[in-house]
Amino acid sequence: MKQKIKIIQDTREPEMQMLVDTLDLEIEFEKKKLEIGDYVYDDGFNRIIIERKSIDDFCLSILDGRITEQGFKMEELQKINEYNDGWKCFIIIVGNIKDRKIDIHENCILGKIASLVVKHNIKVIQVNDEFQFLWVLKNLIDKIQIKGGEENAKNSNK
Amino acid sequence: MKQKIKIIQDTREPEMQMLVDTLDLEIEFEKKKLEIGDYVYDDGFNRIIIERKSIDDFCLSILDGRITEQGFKMEELQKINEYNDGWKCFIIIVGNIKDRKIDIHENCILGKIASLVVKHNIKVIQVNDEFQFLWVLKNLIDKIQIKGGEENAKNSNK
Repeated sequence: MKQKIKIIQDTREPEMQMLVDTLDLEIEFEKKKLEIGDYVYDDGFNRIIIERKSIDDFCLSILDGRITEQGFKMEELQKINEYNDGWKCFIIIVGNIKDRKIDIHENCILGKIASLVVKHNIKVIQVNDEFQFLWVLKNLIDKIQIKGGEENAKNSNK
Repeated sequence: MKQKIKIIQDTREPEMQMLVDTLDLEIEFEKKKLEIGDYVYDDGFNRIIIERKSIDDFCLSILDGRITEQGFKMEELQKINEYNDGWKCFIIIVGNIKDRKIDIHENCILGKIASLVVKHNIKVIQVNDEFQFLWVLKNLIDKIQIKGGEENAKNSNK
């Protein structure tokens, strides 16, 4: 039997275990209050922080400045660990800009995404729904594990 | 009068000058045949390569392997210049996964995006239309210029 990936999920996040089980994603969530991000994966070598934001929440967080604050925090975390393969930070936006219910111009949203990507060096991925979110979550961790393994093998051969 | 940003646009790209002029984006395109990417900005200090892909073209490039090839090329370009603030590579996908006309499962598309982001360290941004594409193009360059200027100032103070 394949071992499930253990992911810490912030207590304020919605219940997703049933959905990942239905999708056979081999993920096991553990609820914990997180300081930064909503999902954390840490196997001691690969360390990933993922912030999940619905498009409306993303818009609100631009208006009240939360997303800029989170951008700075994530940037710092990535910097600290830059040379020992530390935290990798992602923001996943769920829902399309067109479907937002918050009164904010799309140029602001796109500008903020460009800013998070360039200024704070954070990877921003957009998906349509929670299914796509979970699939991307699983894929990011899988691929970081593979890359981490390859780099490890390369370094030990040096 | 503000000086226009000069961007090299691949000869195979559609005419966009009229659109940027309508939007007052202060961009001037120069057509050239490019080896990698569709849009290149290079002021000698900040160097940016942007690949623009409609969602259908992105799907096709997964199926025929072109996007993986481009991923490797961009990764190499970023690596070579890692320590002298060199090429920054972006892929901008225009259009939503839901609207694709190519027969490919959405999990493949999302998996490939995760792979480009994690494995090849490329920033992938998704937008809905050409207006949003041009706005993001302008914003990326503006923000890279600002960041480059800040880093330059920091280094010269050392």
